[in-house]
Amino acid sequence: MNLQRLFDPDTIAVVGASTDEDKIGYEAMANAVGFDGTAYPVNPSAEGSVLGEAFVESVGDIDERVDLALLCVPGPVVPEVLEECGEADIGGAVIYAGGFAEAGDDGRELQAAVVDIADAHDVALLGPNTSGFVVPGEGLLCSFAGGVERVPAGDVAAIAQSGGIAHDLAFRATREGYGLSAMVGLGNRANVGFEEAIAYFDGHDDTDAIALHVEGTDDARSLLETCRAVETPVVAYKVGQSDVGEFAESHTGALTGDHDLYLAGFEQYGVPTVDSTAALLDAGVALATEPELTGGDVGVVTAQAGPGIVIADRLQRAGATLPELGPETRERIDGILPGITFSGNPVDTGRPMPEFGDVVEAVATDDAVDVVVVYELFEEALGFPVEALDGLHETADTPVLFVSEGPPDSMAAEVAALREAGVPVYFQPERGAEAAATLARYAEIRKSEDEDGVAAGSAADTGGGR
Amino acid sequence: MNLQRLFDPDTIAVVGASTDEDKIGYEAMANAVGFDGTAYPVNPSAEGSVLGEAFVESVGDIDERVDLALLCVPGPVVPEVLEECGEADIGGAVIYAGGFAEAGDDGRELQAAVVDIADAHDVALLGPNTSGFVVPGEGLLCSFAGGVERVPAGDVAAIAQSGGIAHDLAFRATREGYGLSAMVGLGNRANVGFEEAIAYFDGHDDTDAIALHVEGTDDARSLLETCRAVETPVVAYKVGQSDVGEFAESHTGALTGDHDLYLAGFEQYGVPTVDSTAALLDAGVALATEPELTGGDVGVVTAQAGPGIVIADRLQRAGATLPELGPETRERIDGILPGITFSGNPVDTGRPMPEFGDVVEAVATDDAVDVVVVYELFEEALGFPVEALDGLHETADTPVLFVSEGPPDSMAAEVAALREAGVPVYFQPERGAEAAATLARYAEIRKSEDEDGVAAGSAADTGGGR
Repeated sequence: MNLQRLFDPDTIAVVGASTDEDKIGYEAMANAVGFDGTAYPVNPSAEGSVLGEAFVESVGDIDERVDLALLCVPGPVVPEVLEECGEADIGGAVIYAGGFAEAGDDGRELQAAVVDIADAHDVALLGPNTSGFVVPGEGLLCSFAGGVERVPAGDVAAIAQSGGIAHDLAFRATREGYGLSAMVGLGNRANVGFEEAIAYFDGHDDTDAIALHVEGTDDARSLLETCRAVETPVVAYKVGQSDVGEFAESHTGALTGDHDLYLAGFEQYGVPTVDSTAALLDAGVALATEPELTGGDVGVVTAQAGPGIVIADRLQRAGATLPELGPETRERIDGILPGITFSGNPVDTGRPMPEFGDVVEAVATDDAVDVVVVYELFEEALGFPVEALDGLHETADTPVLFVSEGPPDSMAAEVAALREAGVPVYFQPERGAEAAATLARYAEIRKSEDEDGVAAGSAADTGGGR
Repeated sequence: MNLQRLFDPDTIAVVGASTDEDKIGYEAMANAVGFDGTAYPVNPSAEGSVLGEAFVESVGDIDERVDLALLCVPGPVVPEVLEECGEADIGGAVIYAGGFAEAGDDGRELQAAVVDIADAHDVALLGPNTSGFVVPGEGLLCSFAGGVERVPAGDVAAIAQSGGIAHDLAFRATREGYGLSAMVGLGNRANVGFEEAIAYFDGHDDTDAIALHVEGTDDARSLLETCRAVETPVVAYKVGQSDVGEFAESHTGALTGDHDLYLAGFEQYGVPTVDSTAALLDAGVALATEPELTGGDVGVVTAQAGPGIVIADRLQRAGATLPELGPETRERIDGILPGITFSGNPVDTGRPMPEFGDVVEAVATDDAVDVVVVYELFEEALGFPVEALDGLHETADTPVLFVSEGPPDSMAAEVAALREAGVPVYFQPERGAEAAATLARYAEIRKSEDEDGVAAGSAADTGGGR
């Protein structure tokens, strides 16, 4: 299936567009008009125009070839509308309505009918039962949620089974000052599932990592094989360690399956897993630095001991190794800071100082170190060592993950500068440590795959659907 | 020991105050002058004035009675300066310098000498090796860190073994839009330790909960007994599950001790424990609602299923129970929202709607429910159901923890309004769930204490210092 017209349309039809600001047909239209092409409002019972665009009666009445239809209509009307879309050669559709496979037997029948129509006309369907998708770099806002125009462009694609989680992640990134290359709520995955979305964003120029939220799927093997086949790093958060079956099934019509089998399966197919929405994005941002990791040993540099202890503790609990630094590095650090507080790993400089960046650089270029986690409280007079850290993920193949805290407004520009220099910035010491541990695990997984050839698939049936 | 003059001074002396903006003697002075009393800059080798205050040569030269001295001088000079402070009848001192018990035998001797002087003159010492403390409600900024004036006033006192963690927590709260009643970095705890600080903030009018960061202490039993004796709820984050001994000892001169024994000891003495800096503040904010909890059963109401599943999963994994709702509640909810998506617990309204607050209220007033967690993506047109939730923690003795996400700027005022109404607001579904689980555990611990009388202390030797 080709998802190009769904996720990268030149023309959009908003079916069920409305002038009533309380309706999603208005919200979806208001979001859609911001993109680079034309968004046509379609509504047979509306007259005049909405947001400067004249209503048309039906998608068949649009002269231009339409790529994508956003269906803001109730579930029972969807088959009829989708048939019209298919006849008009529309290539993609988003179905926002619920009442499909998540809602019992009648809903399952309705969904099957919709999929038949879509398949017959080769329409890629996002949903039903989703709040849509957003591609911030294109100003493409195919969601009915307000405020999505404020999500900045970034390099991680968040693909979530739940539209609610997708939006939560997108606004979370916004709150923390960075962006996403895309956010997608898959909903019921009628004919665009994890596999199709992952494959599409693997080929998306602006996407350097894929962050996956999974409740459950009937064909876990197919999902895992897609993850292994793509080049873009993928990290996954599988929800449902405890029994949330009944509620989850009522959500997107999918069983949550056996949690431990999912986790083992992901790791075996080259996908590190994390255990929270925060860790999902955090790891995505770290993976998007695209280092050529040769191992997973972590160096820690801190300007304050307490957060450094938290980071070292969390790293070790997550299975990461903190190697001894080489004699050259220790010598270099002693030269930069004679009588330094603690010269092992973690390296503790005692407080922020102008030489802090040089210490980080010394650790990052140590052969024993694959990933560096840094903690430094922000001091306005010093700023961050942007220049010293700029591009270390490329020049030394050592990603540097920077954890900080401070007065939010006064540090915002420096945080942005670090990110611009290829240095992910985190708040909360635990979050930086966990992102580094996930990066380390990714390196170890990939290394063992390289050593063994392609990972054996025999034990990887995750039992999805059982 | 009386900590009144340390933590609530009328007059401050900044010893080692400086006009050099790169020195902590300047930063400490710049922060200190913001408070309601006079901050005298003391420096025998300085002339003129700094920030409008004339330098004095020695604390003995100040005519007014000085309550608190902030010692911005190198470690070796501290004994001499502290002796002068004692002779001048100063009641409290903060020692910022390091090089004491955390730095080997010489440092330990230096610290012992300092404690002897302080004890002889009845001076309460914060530190050494700390970045100080802040009481935002009083504009009392006894820290040398820039930007602490931006930390808002709140109702949780964050007491951290590490000054770095204390500042991280304070700026974290600021970033998330709320404040603290106090933040204290204990450092080496020369003569003001956990016990003294906890007892003081138990009597502090603006403090409704105490959030404790612990690396380790030589007398864990004394800490635990203090926690049990105070009325203010305490929650603790014990760092060091993995072996961070050497680095931690080099930090504040304390051993991290046996992690599991600490956790068991805390719970036995009525203190729930958490496992991250984020969870520490989150639980503190929840405990500060001061509900009369009779149990720990959690109701969940969500406007989006995906985050609701994450919350239910996380709650159950943390040991919380999601009870069945009573028939009256279900009937009430059916009346508010006929054909609601999922009418169990979690209650899923499908999307935000004007009736959302009524559904939350119905669940909060169900007899089976002790704590409610709510998830709702922010919609500008709807806002938050502030009125419906206002004061439910008092009227129904059911704290409502609200989790949301959305465009940060457009929702900020509504977030503040919810907090003003006694409803803690969290970002990230996992964080709200964990705060509720901690609140539930607190209720269960307290209930079993009430049932058993005072909890038995026999198995509670946490082995601190071993």
